[in-house]
Amino acid sequence: MSAWRWTGTGRPLQLHEVPVPAPGPDEVLVRVRAAGMCHSDVGELDEPSWAVNITRNPITLGHEIAGEVVAVGADVTGWATGQRVGVHPQGSTVPGYSRDGGYASHHLAPADDLVAVPDGLSDDLAATGTDAGMTSYHAVAVVGGVRAGSRVGVIGLGGLGQLGAQLAVHLGAEVHGADTSTAARSLAAGWGLAGLHERAEDLRGLGLDVVIDFAGFGTTTEAAVHAIRVGGDVVMVGLGAERTTLTTADVIHQKARIHGSSGGTRDDIAAVYQHLASGALAPTVERIGFDDVPRGIERLRAGDVRGRLVVVMP
Amino acid sequence: MSAWRWTGTGRPLQLHEVPVPAPGPDEVLVRVRAAGMCHSDVGELDEPSWAVNITRNPITLGHEIAGEVVAVGADVTGWATGQRVGVHPQGSTVPGYSRDGGYASHHLAPADDLVAVPDGLSDDLAATGTDAGMTSYHAVAVVGGVRAGSRVGVIGLGGLGQLGAQLAVHLGAEVHGADTSTAARSLAAGWGLAGLHERAEDLRGLGLDVVIDFAGFGTTTEAAVHAIRVGGDVVMVGLGAERTTLTTADVIHQKARIHGSSGGTRDDIAAVYQHLASGALAPTVERIGFDDVPRGIERLRAGDVRGRLVVVMP
Repeated sequence: MSAWRWTGTGRPLQLHEVPVPAPGPDEVLVRVRAAGMCHSDVGELDEPSWAVNITRNPITLGHEIAGEVVAVGADVTGWATGQRVGVHPQGSTVPGYSRDGGYASHHLAPADDLVAVPDGLSDDLAATGTDAGMTSYHAVAVVGGVRAGSRVGVIGLGGLGQLGAQLAVHLGAEVHGADTSTAARSLAAGWGLAGLHERAEDLRGLGLDVVIDFAGFGTTTEAAVHAIRVGGDVVMVGLGAERTTLTTADVIHQKARIHGSSGGTRDDIAAVYQHLASGALAPTVERIGFDDVPRGIERLRAGDVRGRLVVVMP
Repeated sequence: MSAWRWTGTGRPLQLHEVPVPAPGPDEVLVRVRAAGMCHSDVGELDEPSWAVNITRNPITLGHEIAGEVVAVGADVTGWATGQRVGVHPQGSTVPGYSRDGGYASHHLAPADDLVAVPDGLSDDLAATGTDAGMTSYHAVAVVGGVRAGSRVGVIGLGGLGQLGAQLAVHLGAEVHGADTSTAARSLAAGWGLAGLHERAEDLRGLGLDVVIDFAGFGTTTEAAVHAIRVGGDVVMVGLGAERTTLTTADVIHQKARIHGSSGGTRDDIAAVYQHLASGALAPTVERIGFDDVPRGIERLRAGDVRGRLVVVMP
């Protein structure tokens, strides 16, 4: 099969011919139907510091994987051929980092890392749900504790933020969004937000229960501290800037609780799949073909993607 | 009576003769026995930004107050002359900010802000227990959730940090301390710490459950993030540097929970009074006379104080 592979920092993705793998006793072979592209793909390709987490070379990239079970290992129980599954991107191994990922026709996954895809959920949304969906759900519902009646700020309404903002509205929260992109704000106009702002600083003084920062530009986290009530929560998800600088006295006098949130669990994926299947979450997804993966990388690198980019396999 | 009073930012404390106040219906007149000095006194005197919180001019400074009830208002129940009390420094009003403070022979306090001083607790420790004790207790035991078996870092072993470190040991935690001062580390050698380090960075990789940063030099908070386990807690108390800069990815990948902690409650004061009375907490306290208050300010400004400075009244 053809696979788009990482061969070292600073090198372009390469299309290799590799054998379709066979499952070991505890593994499942998945026919990939959709593989979401993520800005972290660019990090792997461009940033030398990321290489420490990549344990195989060459390795097939792509860590947002959904597809159909086509073979199961001898000791696997609970999964059978024909089932539709998503793959937990932070399970016992990490696709695209310590195991070949999803930019190929087939993906070999540990059985323990699979999540069932409910009827009515498309392959592209199932792929997006694994990492983008899981991470957003974990930040908003688990770490942020958003529930009916919560007063919530969401900074950054793009890839993950769109899911986070829609989820918070669906959970019954009063949601105030901020994004510097006019296009992002236009998309968000139909989501039922209580407020829609250009700058994170515009949330200042709202006294919110929790602000989720999907941008992570440092200044946005500072703005989040100014947007919460005394004793409120700030959830950091985005990695926009290397450093985050806060005013010490503001953190202390606001009695802020600042949480770093990363990834999530299989339960988070299962939960976000229900919300995606019901239509409560309707992220903007752009479908591209397998041959367009390098072009997708270019667009992610240039910041030229609204919503999520998903590679749909033939 | 004589009172050391603030008359504006950038001016030295002034000694004024003022009348001994009479209690209103819900107030209690306290004969001051001890008044702790705090580095925030210097902030009030030197920093223009602090003036916004000072609502009277002139105003008597001193917000760590312990003494004896000498008169009670008509509607006050539960307090009687002769009782020894400490004054909650962040009650309905704030001594030294919105109400005359403790650098005088008498202090007028709302009855609701008093805490009983247990037998066997000295006046100077009772004064220190109000603000320094309360704030340390709140940061360590309430916000930090330190308990028996916790693995704890304490950065800064001076005024508040000495109380925080001793409390954590007393609660049964494994405590690793850090302070750049040789003198502070010498004092700490007898506290039963599991480790004693010069630099906060020396705590890196210990995988601690919680680190309390009593220094607040920005770099110390960054070091605290590196000292916790994944999902661990960092409590920010100290205001050493105006800005705190963190590595965004470290906060997120550590799944850190960073709490701003400020002040505390009457219950916190009552709890810390029990630990002080039992001898479990034995902070280094230096007693000075009423006439030495300006000199005490000078020494705090110069950073020339180990432990806490307490004005003992005749």
